[in-house]
Amino acid sequence: MNVKMIGKYLGRILTLNSLCMVPPLFIGLFLGEFESFWSFLVAIGAQMLVAILLMLVPIKDKTIYAKEGMVIVALSWIFISLFGALPFYFSRSIPSFVDALFETVSGFTTTGASVVANVEILPKSILFWRSFTHWLGGMGVLVLILAIAPSHGGSGMPLHILRAESPGPVVGKLAPKLSLTVRILYTIYVVLTLMQLVFLLCGGMPFFDALLTSFGTAGTGGFGIKNDSMASYSPYIQTVTASFMVLFAINFSIYFLVLMKDWRGVLKNTELRVFLFIVAASTFGIAFMVQDDFGGQFPTALRHAFFQVSSMISSSGFATVNYEFWPELAKSIIVMLMFIGACAGSTGGGFKVSRIVILWKSIKADIKKILHPRSVTVPTMDGKALEKTVVERCFTFLFIYVAIFAVSVLLLSIEGLDFTSNFTAVSACLNNIGPGFGEVGPASNFGGLAVFSKVVLIFDMLLGRLEIFPLLLILLPSTWRKAS
Amino acid sequence: MNVKMIGKYLGRILTLNSLCMVPPLFIGLFLGEFESFWSFLVAIGAQMLVAILLMLVPIKDKTIYAKEGMVIVALSWIFISLFGALPFYFSRSIPSFVDALFETVSGFTTTGASVVANVEILPKSILFWRSFTHWLGGMGVLVLILAIAPSHGGSGMPLHILRAESPGPVVGKLAPKLSLTVRILYTIYVVLTLMQLVFLLCGGMPFFDALLTSFGTAGTGGFGIKNDSMASYSPYIQTVTASFMVLFAINFSIYFLVLMKDWRGVLKNTELRVFLFIVAASTFGIAFMVQDDFGGQFPTALRHAFFQVSSMISSSGFATVNYEFWPELAKSIIVMLMFIGACAGSTGGGFKVSRIVILWKSIKADIKKILHPRSVTVPTMDGKALEKTVVERCFTFLFIYVAIFAVSVLLLSIEGLDFTSNFTAVSACLNNIGPGFGEVGPASNFGGLAVFSKVVLIFDMLLGRLEIFPLLLILLPSTWRKAS
Repeated sequence: MNVKMIGKYLGRILTLNSLCMVPPLFIGLFLGEFESFWSFLVAIGAQMLVAILLMLVPIKDKTIYAKEGMVIVALSWIFISLFGALPFYFSRSIPSFVDALFETVSGFTTTGASVVANVEILPKSILFWRSFTHWLGGMGVLVLILAIAPSHGGSGMPLHILRAESPGPVVGKLAPKLSLTVRILYTIYVVLTLMQLVFLLCGGMPFFDALLTSFGTAGTGGFGIKNDSMASYSPYIQTVTASFMVLFAINFSIYFLVLMKDWRGVLKNTELRVFLFIVAASTFGIAFMVQDDFGGQFPTALRHAFFQVSSMISSSGFATVNYEFWPELAKSIIVMLMFIGACAGSTGGGFKVSRIVILWKSIKADIKKILHPRSVTVPTMDGKALEKTVVERCFTFLFIYVAIFAVSVLLLSIEGLDFTSNFTAVSACLNNIGPGFGEVGPASNFGGLAVFSKVVLIFDMLLGRLEIFPLLLILLPSTWRKAS
Repeated sequence: MNVKMIGKYLGRILTLNSLCMVPPLFIGLFLGEFESFWSFLVAIGAQMLVAILLMLVPIKDKTIYAKEGMVIVALSWIFISLFGALPFYFSRSIPSFVDALFETVSGFTTTGASVVANVEILPKSILFWRSFTHWLGGMGVLVLILAIAPSHGGSGMPLHILRAESPGPVVGKLAPKLSLTVRILYTIYVVLTLMQLVFLLCGGMPFFDALLTSFGTAGTGGFGIKNDSMASYSPYIQTVTASFMVLFAINFSIYFLVLMKDWRGVLKNTELRVFLFIVAASTFGIAFMVQDDFGGQFPTALRHAFFQVSSMISSSGFATVNYEFWPELAKSIIVMLMFIGACAGSTGGGFKVSRIVILWKSIKADIKKILHPRSVTVPTMDGKALEKTVVERCFTFLFIYVAIFAVSVLLLSIEGLDFTSNFTAVSACLNNIGPGFGEVGPASNFGGLAVFSKVVLIFDMLLGRLEIFPLLLILLPSTWRKAS
């Protein structure tokens, strides 16, 4: 284990994190929110101190392997969450540190589960930081470093980190050089965010609201800046947001194909087609079911159904209505969408459409083998044979996912909430959605949970965002053994 | 597809099924329950007619493959359920045919979910048949044919059928000849059932009650003959039943090892150790939690905890208390046990302990590979390397299991019950337990559900008992194509 290289990267990530606190620092200064101004200043100072200490260590061997890549990613996310919580805590916007940590992890992991009951009284600088963590976490903080830092030091570096931090079973190379791939991805991300900002401004949304909503949408996070999430905004703004939630839940390499004018590649992409089909089918299905809730107005029902569906499948967690009062079937579909999740290579969470497609294809091949024992059937996707290791990793992921889910529900039930609340709280956090049902429904928040439950859910959010393996690895003693 | 051989086996299975109706026929005759007597007579007649027609077809090619084995198993179970429902229906004990079918499938699959609100008014002959289906379904009806029929016609026959009908990822050969293995297994089954019967009689239980309780325990079914399940019986009878539920949930090859005095093999069996550990840990854990419910009497709490734990993990579904009022954590453990299920090669349902162990070991090897990319790690169990196909089949099983679970919950929610009821109803049926929580809790029954929900759950029970693949196969059009 190359501990020094890990230290170096942690130093870099803390530097980046403190730089990201500069905008809210100035907002605090200009708006006279001195309490938050000071807390950002202290947080920046503390981070820079640690960062400098970490980066002063001289490094000879710059080689790192997949293992180090995963450890760097896991520790980075823990570090930025711990330091990112300081402004909430010091400014007394969130007086308990565990709560502040919950909110920060929820931000970076783009979950959007909140402990704050009344967000409208929070200082603007704090609100900015809260939503900005979504934007930073969406594409990944280490990917951002790879995109902006001139040198990556050491061979194999970018690939291992990109793999560990990017959602989904495979990482597509868009350009021969990975550093270029990363830059293309981040450029697409920035451009899409700006597009949404412009669309929202056209709808008459105030600049600050539009910017923060764009951050939350881009990262598929879901922190609202109003207590009723997105319910009080105009139908136009709701529809723009819903559409961008879908756009941010699509694999970014699709946009690259669009730029390259490779329309066949776009149309033939299996994951995209399955994803869009699920969105369309769920939207229309739910719209029919909830029509009566909106006085029989099908267009209105369709708008709200589309918003909730895109919010759930993209793992954003914004809401325009309290879907708790919807028919049971509509609610079940919502829960199902929470688990399916977005496309790989997007900013969304959940199990990922591509994993389901891969598992499904592998199982179809398996059944074919039972029927025709002597035939050779290789599962394919998008015209290419599925690699055996990719399929295996998906199955492994499924098992650990189910196991973590079960254990988390068990741990949460110690507090004594009802089954639906426990189940959907874990589902909302592990899939990085935000709100669940019952005690953690769209009209409630996570503030009322016990400290122990919050800690469990903090782990779930991180496990969900980093897709289990990196975080699991740093908990294994053998990872840290000298010989290995 | 060798359709004629499939027909021949269906004929045999219906013959067996009608023979099994002879005891309740006579019970009906002797006790003067003429309505049930006639209905058994009609059911026997109908079955024999169909059986003779099927067996008259001359057969040249007796070869069958894994595919035919699965189809035979799936169709056999459907046939015996359809005909097995006739006595319930004709005797008007269960006036709706879907309800009668539900009860029969619940019986054969050893689920024990009932639509009957007041079982105490049912005729004795009907009660006998109801519990006898548990006993028949526990070890498998086709396995019974293999054990008693002199010839099995055609090569590969017994293995394919045994594999398809026996629970668990692998079928252990106890003797060099499979027909002998099957006979040994059934002998153990009969002896254990008789042992329980004797133990229950020693506790002063009436013979009829003791016999039916033994049937229900042996098959890990759980149909009670009292409206309060096992609550009104003495602590001794409850403890005997709980102990036998554990015994019937253990892999029967363990008893073979005991008979062979291979104690090392018993002690080193991973699945057994994990299973017993889970039982012990859950029992003590729950006993501590529910102590106050029993006036602080720890022994009483321990007894009820042990009963409920063994009932759930063995997938029986008997109850001595209404665990709906237990603390949330205890309830979560109960739900968890429902999913874990019994050992492979037992009569119990659920996901099976061995599958979890296999997946866990394969994943440990996987993680080791991430840590040491160049090392070769082969997962082992009980000193033997795990076959790759076995591991793959377990993962496939997990995925289809989760998918079927999700779709079933979705379909059930059409009716509009709450999430907990839907979730635990599917869990109780797919895992062949019986009662769930909420609307389908231990103090309620499945009678109030809509017909559509019942049909969904009938499929779930069959899918659970036959472990998905056989039933899935007969639904695929390509299974029935000539060329294949």
